Amino acid sequence: MITTLLLRSNRTRLLLYAALLCSGFTMRADAQANDSIFIRRLADEILLRSTAYENLRVLTKQIGPRLAGSAGMVKAEQWGVAAMQRAGADSTFKQQCMVPHWVRGGQDQARALVNGKSITLDVVALGNSIGTGPAELMAPVLEVRSFEELQQRQQEVKGKIVFYNYPFNATLVRTFQAYGDANKFRGQGPSQAARYGALGVVVRSMSHSTDNHPHTGSTRYDSLYTKIPAVAIGLQDADRLSGWIAQRSAPGSVQVGLRTLGHFLPDTIGHNVIGELKGTLYPNEIITVGGHLDSWDNCEGAHDDGAGCVQTIEILRAFTAMGYKPQRTIRFVLFANEENGLRGGTQYAEEAKRKGEKHVFALESDAGGFTPRALGFTVSDAQFQKLMQWQPLIAPYGCSEFSRGGGGADIGPLNRLFNTPVAGLQPDSQRYFDYHHARSDVFEAVNKRELELGAVNMAALLYLIDRYGL
Amino acid sequence: MITTLLLRSNRTRLLLYAALLCSGFTMRADAQANDSIFIRRLADEILLRSTAYENLRVLTKQIGPRLAGSAGMVKAEQWGVAAMQRAGADSTFKQQCMVPHWVRGGQDQARALVNGKSITLDVVALGNSIGTGPAELMAPVLEVRSFEELQQRQQEVKGKIVFYNYPFNATLVRTFQAYGDANKFRGQGPSQAARYGALGVVVRSMSHSTDNHPHTGSTRYDSLYTKIPAVAIGLQDADRLSGWIAQRSAPGSVQVGLRTLGHFLPDTIGHNVIGELKGTLYPNEIITVGGHLDSWDNCEGAHDDGAGCVQTIEILRAFTAMGYKPQRTIRFVLFANEENGLRGGTQYAEEAKRKGEKHVFALESDAGGFTPRALGFTVSDAQFQKLMQWQPLIAPYGCSEFSRGGGGADIGPLNRLFNTPVAGLQPDSQRYFDYHHARSDVFEAVNKRELELGAVNMAALLYLIDRYGL
Repeated sequence: MITTLLLRSNRTRLLLYAALLCSGFTMRADAQANDSIFIRRLADEILLRSTAYENLRVLTKQIGPRLAGSAGMVKAEQWGVAAMQRAGADSTFKQQCMVPHWVRGGQDQARALVNGKSITLDVVALGNSIGTGPAELMAPVLEVRSFEELQQRQQEVKGKIVFYNYPFNATLVRTFQAYGDANKFRGQGPSQAARYGALGVVVRSMSHSTDNHPHTGSTRYDSLYTKIPAVAIGLQDADRLSGWIAQRSAPGSVQVGLRTLGHFLPDTIGHNVIGELKGTLYPNEIITVGGHLDSWDNCEGAHDDGAGCVQTIEILRAFTAMGYKPQRTIRFVLFANEENGLRGGTQYAEEAKRKGEKHVFALESDAGGFTPRALGFTVSDAQFQKLMQWQPLIAPYGCSEFSRGGGGADIGPLNRLFNTPVAGLQPDSQRYFDYHHARSDVFEAVNKRELELGAVNMAALLYLIDRYGL
Repeated sequence: MITTLLLRSNRTRLLLYAALLCSGFTMRADAQANDSIFIRRLADEILLRSTAYENLRVLTKQIGPRLAGSAGMVKAEQWGVAAMQRAGADSTFKQQCMVPHWVRGGQDQARALVNGKSITLDVVALGNSIGTGPAELMAPVLEVRSFEELQQRQQEVKGKIVFYNYPFNATLVRTFQAYGDANKFRGQGPSQAARYGALGVVVRSMSHSTDNHPHTGSTRYDSLYTKIPAVAIGLQDADRLSGWIAQRSAPGSVQVGLRTLGHFLPDTIGHNVIGELKGTLYPNEIITVGGHLDSWDNCEGAHDDGAGCVQTIEILRAFTAMGYKPQRTIRFVLFANEENGLRGGTQYAEEAKRKGEKHVFALESDAGGFTPRALGFTVSDAQFQKLMQWQPLIAPYGCSEFSRGGGGADIGPLNRLFNTPVAGLQPDSQRYFDYHHARSDVFEAVNKRELELGAVNMAALLYLIDRYGL
């Protein structure tokens, strides 16, 4: 049925659209067929006239990095408001929240001392990490592959720089599983090493890219232990460093020097940027769709999460361009501070609670602007059954898989506070960690059509939920 | 079940492998479980130790373009034989065939004359096309969007250069449909225009890329009409040219100049490169897997079809490294001259017929080295039913969709001569036509992991067919 519609000539399609338009989107016996036609029209609008790619170009090339608290954040918020207005929001507003203000403080530097020879290493300080200060921190390096090994060798740790060299698991087909498996070393590694007296930490980047770009991301210090400096190292340099260590017989005979300047400034004011289409029938039932506007400071944040932002704005633009008036209120949200605090998502849910808002559904895109493959849902059994009936309507556009589990960091608080059903767009994940939090996450790494198809699948789901509830 | 296996620890997996190895791969009651374990092991072998990416680097960067008849073709054949031997083939041989020898003859040149101003256009002569010769062919340009329009305006065609400006249809989600829809203008466009007296043809490139690279590909002259020169033009230049034409009131007041030097040299000797693993139980039943070794002369042919070649060699390497002895004979084939003659695939099938060989299955990868999504089968209903039982074994590695229809140009003759069941790997198609036959089809456009996953899915299917027949 859907396939048949897909293969119809443009002319036939236009006639069907015209008929549909005349009917005023009223519910009819052939609702499923009408939905299929509306979604086809939505897809055509996006695939033929999307502004997502040009919006992404501006966000990445003209604004660039936009970590919470930075000047880039302020510029991005201004851009977001204007973009929402241009896309046709009924109203656009900024929702204030206090955000952390971590700064890198300068160029991260690292070198290895091998047989008295100094070799530069490509590193990036972990987000939220404390710097060494202007004086280099030089110490013998201890390489470990696990927290178990660290514990077994705890007597050797004192006065050293611990090098967590745990490889990203290439055998896990879905790369987010490999990330889930490896990122504990970035999150907990510094404090676990400090517990045994380490002076600093080097973490192998969470990636299986073929280049040497280091990948940053937040670390979390445990208040029980001293905060020590920590950097991520590129994969090629990680292998080189490991090789030098293997060649030296005496443990600790390879030294590493770090110089990082990261520190916190006082919390500052940031904003969620929100565009709204007011519901015609159920204005108090709120559907949220969004991505996060902040990015790490070492990249353009094109996939993470410029893609999610411009897809969100594109769905607003497409609905408006088609004259679609939602039954429920749809909020298009660019969340603040996902990367190193989640203050935007938290604020959004808390303000909703304070105001007694009714949040019926939320959808996030924060897994890159790649070809859409799946939608992941954190919903009840009954809701999932209902969603599965819509799968044939969305599958032709890429998301042929509907699965349990999924959502997004920024809409997690909504789910926790209200038990709001949430979903996450799950694009093809193979290239995501090539770019994630690395200097290579730039506009050029995003494919126009893959980005647009993500918006198509999200828009189709939002349309169905707006029309039928969940 | 498969999911469970995927989530088991490496240690458990190793024990299971060990048990399986001791059993000598004999058929057991828990065959499906064993198959799942073997395929997991095959995937690990490829994802952890693949040489596909490094082979592709050599093929694209050291050998480069390798159109039939060129010096690159000869170098590529030598490389292919050595690579098959290194990968562990029982025997390696070259199968001779005569191939066409079209040469570009020099740098293709084009310009528009607009208000007396000369503006350079980025074009590439179509493969197999006849050149203008050293003197520029300058003529007024006539833009059409369809063969119907050409026919309606046939009185205007004489003495003109016809510009087929038919856009690649962005609303077709599967890009090969858009290609199937548009490539008639490249194939038949020159002769259709010559029929009405055109002097040359400019075809809009079959792509929805965001750059301006022109995309070549074969044209086919109809012997009824004069052979006229023909080029493809980059998308940005196509839009610019169309804009100039729209601005001029008098038809034909924009002129285009072409200078191309394409011509045929006498047919020459090329080869299919074949590595073989001899079947232990049914040596006379032949399974073929392959890609094509030739590429267009204007690119490195990384996706088209270096990817298919190195995936083919990788499957051989993985089977050998695991000590897997196939029951049936598996032929790993790098076909000659797919792009502008199909002489390799034709020769392969005809020689098989002459020798009375029994070809039980053939698989081709010639749709790019992107994330695998589907396997397309040209098989009987009964065979498709059998294949569908294996889908759960392969789906976790990417090809979650098994569909009817599919194969590859090079294995098409096998299917036609023997009714051999054939299949084609269908990777994600969104980026394929960004690179297809354009100078941007280079090594850097291929992602290591996506390439390897393609080989994993192909290897899994070959294993199952080898083990159980079809």
